[in-house]
Amino acid sequence: MAFDIVIIGYFAGFCTAIAQFPQAIKVIKTNDTKSISLGMYFIMTLGITLWFLYGVLLKNLPMIIANGVCLIPSVYILYITIRNLIKSKKLSS
Amino acid sequence: MAFDIVIIGYFAGFCTAIAQFPQAIKVIKTNDTKSISLGMYFIMTLGITLWFLYGVLLKNLPMIIANGVCLIPSVYILYITIRNLIKSKKLSS
Repeated sequence: MAFDIVIIGYFAGFCTAIAQFPQAIKVIKTNDTKSISLGMYFIMTLGITLWFLYGVLLKNLPMIIANGVCLIPSVYILYITIRNLIKSKKLSS
Repeated sequence: MAFDIVIIGYFAGFCTAIAQFPQAIKVIKTNDTKSISLGMYFIMTLGITLWFLYGVLLKNLPMIIANGVCLIPSVYILYITIRNLIKSKKLSS
């Protein structure tokens, strides 16, 4: 495998591993999750958890680290989105 | 590789490939991107594009298909988020 191709893979992995941190920071600052899709974060968190599990079963460290890192903001955003939805349902009932 | 482990990988890939469609549908319905992080969608779209390119260079069809599918909602959400930001900047100036 040519050296340059591997770099693309590592950079791609780095981007998708850190991508959710800006969203988590925005949620921390604004506590606004109104336009965030609960469905997306449920499926995304499930997918990342499965990738993490897959990495553990394969004993593949990059997969474990990338998805382990990615799980942190994803679980946080999912939790705040659910919490805000429950709050807004209580207020409107 | 035990049969069951591969299934986890395919299911993980399926989840992360389709995860953004519910968010794209919510954006289509509400046109509300206020709480969505532009930073996240810029980095996410860049990462998915690189994974797609990486798949093309490796001639890896599952990678090409999964990331090609995933690019559609990601680019759409990025576009609408940028457009709404420009609109809100114009209104406030």
